[in-house]
Amino acid sequence: MNERLTAVYELPGPAAEAERAARLIAFEETVEVPLDFPLPPAIRDGIVGRVGAVTPVDGGRLRAEIEFPAALAAGGLGTLLNLIFGNASIWPGVRLVDVRLPDALLASYPGPSFGVPGLRQMLGVEGRPLLATALKPMGSSPAELAATAAAFARGGGDIAKDDQNIVDADFASFKERVARIADAVLAENARAKRLCLYLPHLSGPQQELEARLKFVLKLGLRGVLVCPAIVGLDEVRRLSAKHPAVYMAHPAFSGAFYADRSHGMETSLYLGTLTRLIGADVSVFPNAGGRFAFTRAECRGIAARARAPLGALAPAWPAPGGGMRLDNAADMAEDFGEDAVWLVGGSLLMQPGGPEAGARAFRAALAPAHRRGDV
Amino acid sequence: MNERLTAVYELPGPAAEAERAARLIAFEETVEVPLDFPLPPAIRDGIVGRVGAVTPVDGGRLRAEIEFPAALAAGGLGTLLNLIFGNASIWPGVRLVDVRLPDALLASYPGPSFGVPGLRQMLGVEGRPLLATALKPMGSSPAELAATAAAFARGGGDIAKDDQNIVDADFASFKERVARIADAVLAENARAKRLCLYLPHLSGPQQELEARLKFVLKLGLRGVLVCPAIVGLDEVRRLSAKHPAVYMAHPAFSGAFYADRSHGMETSLYLGTLTRLIGADVSVFPNAGGRFAFTRAECRGIAARARAPLGALAPAWPAPGGGMRLDNAADMAEDFGEDAVWLVGGSLLMQPGGPEAGARAFRAALAPAHRRGDV
Repeated sequence: MNERLTAVYELPGPAAEAERAARLIAFEETVEVPLDFPLPPAIRDGIVGRVGAVTPVDGGRLRAEIEFPAALAAGGLGTLLNLIFGNASIWPGVRLVDVRLPDALLASYPGPSFGVPGLRQMLGVEGRPLLATALKPMGSSPAELAATAAAFARGGGDIAKDDQNIVDADFASFKERVARIADAVLAENARAKRLCLYLPHLSGPQQELEARLKFVLKLGLRGVLVCPAIVGLDEVRRLSAKHPAVYMAHPAFSGAFYADRSHGMETSLYLGTLTRLIGADVSVFPNAGGRFAFTRAECRGIAARARAPLGALAPAWPAPGGGMRLDNAADMAEDFGEDAVWLVGGSLLMQPGGPEAGARAFRAALAPAHRRGDV
Repeated sequence: MNERLTAVYELPGPAAEAERAARLIAFEETVEVPLDFPLPPAIRDGIVGRVGAVTPVDGGRLRAEIEFPAALAAGGLGTLLNLIFGNASIWPGVRLVDVRLPDALLASYPGPSFGVPGLRQMLGVEGRPLLATALKPMGSSPAELAATAAAFARGGGDIAKDDQNIVDADFASFKERVARIADAVLAENARAKRLCLYLPHLSGPQQELEARLKFVLKLGLRGVLVCPAIVGLDEVRRLSAKHPAVYMAHPAFSGAFYADRSHGMETSLYLGTLTRLIGADVSVFPNAGGRFAFTRAECRGIAARARAPLGALAPAWPAPGGGMRLDNAADMAEDFGEDAVWLVGGSLLMQPGGPEAGARAFRAALAPAHRRGDV
């Protein structure tokens, strides 16, 4: 693989300082020696990153493109993360904003098992966003969570996922809880002759994750909720490649990468591109107007990257969540269009009439002009 | 487990705002419902975090203690990370600065296999810091890296580790390279009748990590270098519990957690406590005065947490690296004392006379008053 990949960093100005920082990063992420180290020409020319365009952006910062040999990232996702944001993650003021990978490298990532078209086909839903909710609160009994999930399914919901705070102390508790909720949702599906997914939270000790996943799939469920920053990005990639299923990614524990806009990684690069690269079919992120400080432009950026052309990878579903109410449905439709999952937790569960009425109300709100009578 | 664990967050002021944020975090990290959600009393009292003391610290910020039921983190490291810094990681301005775990919970983490006393015993070195170097630059042949490692061992070095940028495209290349370097170092050890460790970089596709680790240990090597933020924190915990060995942790890809001091996680909590909790015997971090913006106080803080009492876990070795020169050895000795690994890369490799002379010079500098003639 003689091709090159490009990483784009936003750096503090002035321009001369940004150019110097870019040269240091090009060294740091490859040979990691002082600039005056006596490097052999083959290494200096063939390994060290090459600094390309350095261009001003808003706020007095600059964007620097650095090209690296793609072969340095050919050993899997870990080698890619190490190369583009290993030690650079520790530099104050450095924000990784874009990565462009050659197709030969992208081809080593299977990406989402289903993505937008596959999940539409599975659910038999066209022409409208999907409606998801979170089963909560933590501390509820399996029977209570099962009742919530069944009511949501009855109301026309598409995806009932465990809240990511729902964890189980051991495998036996996981089995009991998940089987109980699965029974309730699968019974609703059989009755209504439609499909509402139940996605249990895949968490637990690392050595049990795969066995828990197999248990879930054996129950007849079609996928899981998973927190890649907790479980490990490459572990999700490994699991999704080995066990094709619906993987809904949750951003828990990843916020330090993007919560402060002056360093880390561009929000949409993490929650749009990276999450999709590891095989997530759906990427959950905090919606603008909710409890977190995301702007509408940032949220649209995540959605754009989740669905943009990326090698042969299927487009993934953006799943804005948090702060979503019936009265801002128009904003949601405008920001995310049809190919989005509306993840509505508290405000759906708290609707008068409960989760069933909540699901009906949000189903009516999410795309009134496009209803195809699929319920 | 009826005990409680305490997480301490630094939050923006004023005090009333910090108290409000603390209450929201206590909800967010457990039940994750709006404050007016009709929670059953058993959940409100038994699950939701309890906000304790909120006290001012420097810079107009405040520290808030939140107690959570320890049982919520009893399902492994993932449940702990999710509970104390799941969605909280996404809140702007929130910095997790301390975690206090009850002994019953700490007991589920074996911690370092060797730590300070075990590694001293293995190496037969008392009364001085250890000297480590990084094999580099990326792009060097296995023979060149082997020659560097052997020279470093001849000069009296204690730990030759792969630079964390050294990665291998496939298992066959990994085997060839690691075996070549191991041969060179083990031959030096046999000749000199002393032990210099060679720690290969354990990286690669997730599904190969354990096989690569087994290959390393089968060669007669005693451990590995690993990047927990890339490989996954709980994956390192799993591997170190299953294959006791020397694990040297490198901070690549973790910097976004602590590089900006206004949010994320306290540097010493990540690189001192968390790294040790997952079983790292040695924790590498960027030293003050190097290329990264760490202060001497922060570095001393990392060292303190790596070695402080923590349940029954062995103390771990702080390994400051970067910007370490012969002329600042006195500062190093003052900051870190005897129980530290001095990780010296470029300035050792670039010594006149090469890595062997470099190792001799740093060995002489690191503790001239304490030499016990162990070479």
